[in-house]
Amino acid sequence: MHSFKELSAQFEQRFSQRQFPQSPANLYDPAQYILGIGGKRIRPVLCLLGNELFDELHPDAFEAASAIELFHNFTLIHDDIMDKAPLRRGQPTVHTKYSEPAAILAGDVMLIYSYEHLNKINSKVRQKLVGVFNKAAREVCEGQQLDMDMEQQSPEQVQYTDYVNMIALKTSVLLAASLQMGAIIGGGSEGNQQHLYEFGKNVGIAFQIQDDYLDAFGDPEKFGKQPGGDILVNKKTFLLLKALELCNPAQKAELHRLMAGNPSDKVARILQIFHECRVDEWAEKEKERFCASAYKHLDEIAVVSGRKQHLRELADFLLTRQH
Amino acid sequence: MHSFKELSAQFEQRFSQRQFPQSPANLYDPAQYILGIGGKRIRPVLCLLGNELFDELHPDAFEAASAIELFHNFTLIHDDIMDKAPLRRGQPTVHTKYSEPAAILAGDVMLIYSYEHLNKINSKVRQKLVGVFNKAAREVCEGQQLDMDMEQQSPEQVQYTDYVNMIALKTSVLLAASLQMGAIIGGGSEGNQQHLYEFGKNVGIAFQIQDDYLDAFGDPEKFGKQPGGDILVNKKTFLLLKALELCNPAQKAELHRLMAGNPSDKVARILQIFHECRVDEWAEKEKERFCASAYKHLDEIAVVSGRKQHLRELADFLLTRQH
Repeated sequence: MHSFKELSAQFEQRFSQRQFPQSPANLYDPAQYILGIGGKRIRPVLCLLGNELFDELHPDAFEAASAIELFHNFTLIHDDIMDKAPLRRGQPTVHTKYSEPAAILAGDVMLIYSYEHLNKINSKVRQKLVGVFNKAAREVCEGQQLDMDMEQQSPEQVQYTDYVNMIALKTSVLLAASLQMGAIIGGGSEGNQQHLYEFGKNVGIAFQIQDDYLDAFGDPEKFGKQPGGDILVNKKTFLLLKALELCNPAQKAELHRLMAGNPSDKVARILQIFHECRVDEWAEKEKERFCASAYKHLDEIAVVSGRKQHLRELADFLLTRQH
Repeated sequence: MHSFKELSAQFEQRFSQRQFPQSPANLYDPAQYILGIGGKRIRPVLCLLGNELFDELHPDAFEAASAIELFHNFTLIHDDIMDKAPLRRGQPTVHTKYSEPAAILAGDVMLIYSYEHLNKINSKVRQKLVGVFNKAAREVCEGQQLDMDMEQQSPEQVQYTDYVNMIALKTSVLLAASLQMGAIIGGGSEGNQQHLYEFGKNVGIAFQIQDDYLDAFGDPEKFGKQPGGDILVNKKTFLLLKALELCNPAQKAELHRLMAGNPSDKVARILQIFHECRVDEWAEKEKERFCASAYKHLDEIAVVSGRKQHLRELADFLLTRQH
């Protein structure tokens, strides 16, 4: 068994080689470019960890992990076009550096390469793996669409449960599927696969709540940037949606005034309302609720506790970060 | 065995049902929309014909055919964005009717659904089918990129063989792969698969030459529109590229003058040069060369001649059209 760090290094060693043909360069260079601007490779390593929960690391897990990381980067390229984002990880996005047509096509071919990796798996579990992968892939598209739909709505039109569902689809199901695919390769039972899937899904949602929380209440020194970025752009976050539910009519009116204008003390005054209606306390409890569910599912996986050590450490690390 | 028309009706009957979930509507309605604006379904029917060349029609062939038609429509959606095309088959393109983000995402999810159809095939040939599909899918992306690359070049910079290669990738390999996938499902040998693939590829190239020829020299009454559309927009066609090779310096200078400006008699004068340097005769011979190669490969497929009847009729129909 290996730690996250060890598996990350193993994956990176294979994945840092060029993943595509040299030519046509205008197709494959943009695809290679986004792989080169970093990322923590969390999803492929989750796949490897899912494998090692049940059995020795199998070469097939690296194919599945590559498919997952290519898929993730394909979604980043296309999402950045849709969101008109100029930067990704501090570097120009693919459509900014190359062109929008190049970025569309590079994303497309990366998705095809994902399936090529899955198709290299010579095992009777390949069909099941592709099924799990396809479901997650469809759901990620659905999550992106729901996110775009919600951007067109006022915060009050967005139901909290719909928002949680959107976040789960957009960000958590791929984490969950990565773990499950590893479990399938490792020979985990259907029941264990499902617990592992739910573990990943709940960790993902808890992480997103924490992310929203830190953007509002994070310690600037530990967080590395001034909090309030989401607040400034009126982003629909867990905090804003819940604050609108919890606050009184006067606070609600004030929130709307602040969001409609851009006063210089907008962040401070919205944070003040968040405090007053105790959405910070709520967020900590809500994160805790998803964390508890995640750890409960991890506990219920029927393997000896020691095998779960690295997954537990990873969840602890992801869910207690202050930065 | 069934004719193209019969198989087309069978496929359409299944495929005319909604192919996607109802929700999120903003994701799946654009995907369903493009399937509803028609198309001749040539590729999926080629897959069914490829199956029937060797064996009774198998349900798996309909899954493969659906995957192929979804893939084809995915490429249409994304190509139309890249080409900024307002219309497709006389109807608004997906990005025009909905939005560019919706069109990108609808294309993405259609590609994922292609693989979902392939994954439904419960047979030991599934891996081989996905391999053939993936190769064609990558090549179609490569062809689209090469086409965009060539648009940035002057006609003289484009080598004729590179142009043929681009056309083959962009338009012919999917026809070829559709036939081969049918052959795989029908149990055709590797050798027979390859002959069928080459048949499809050569038919595709011959068809494109014919298409270019008809746009220039077609009888307006039979062709249904005034010829010269490609000439007006300086489109790189088989004819233009070859004319630049065949013509003398004076004709070449005249061609460049006509392409640089937009005189009212541009089409007539360029057609005159095409005639003078006999590019019309050349195109007929060049088409004939690819036709001959196609029929030779069809002849070499080791099944009784009667089984090839419907494929031969289809090729005859496609390659003798005047409209």
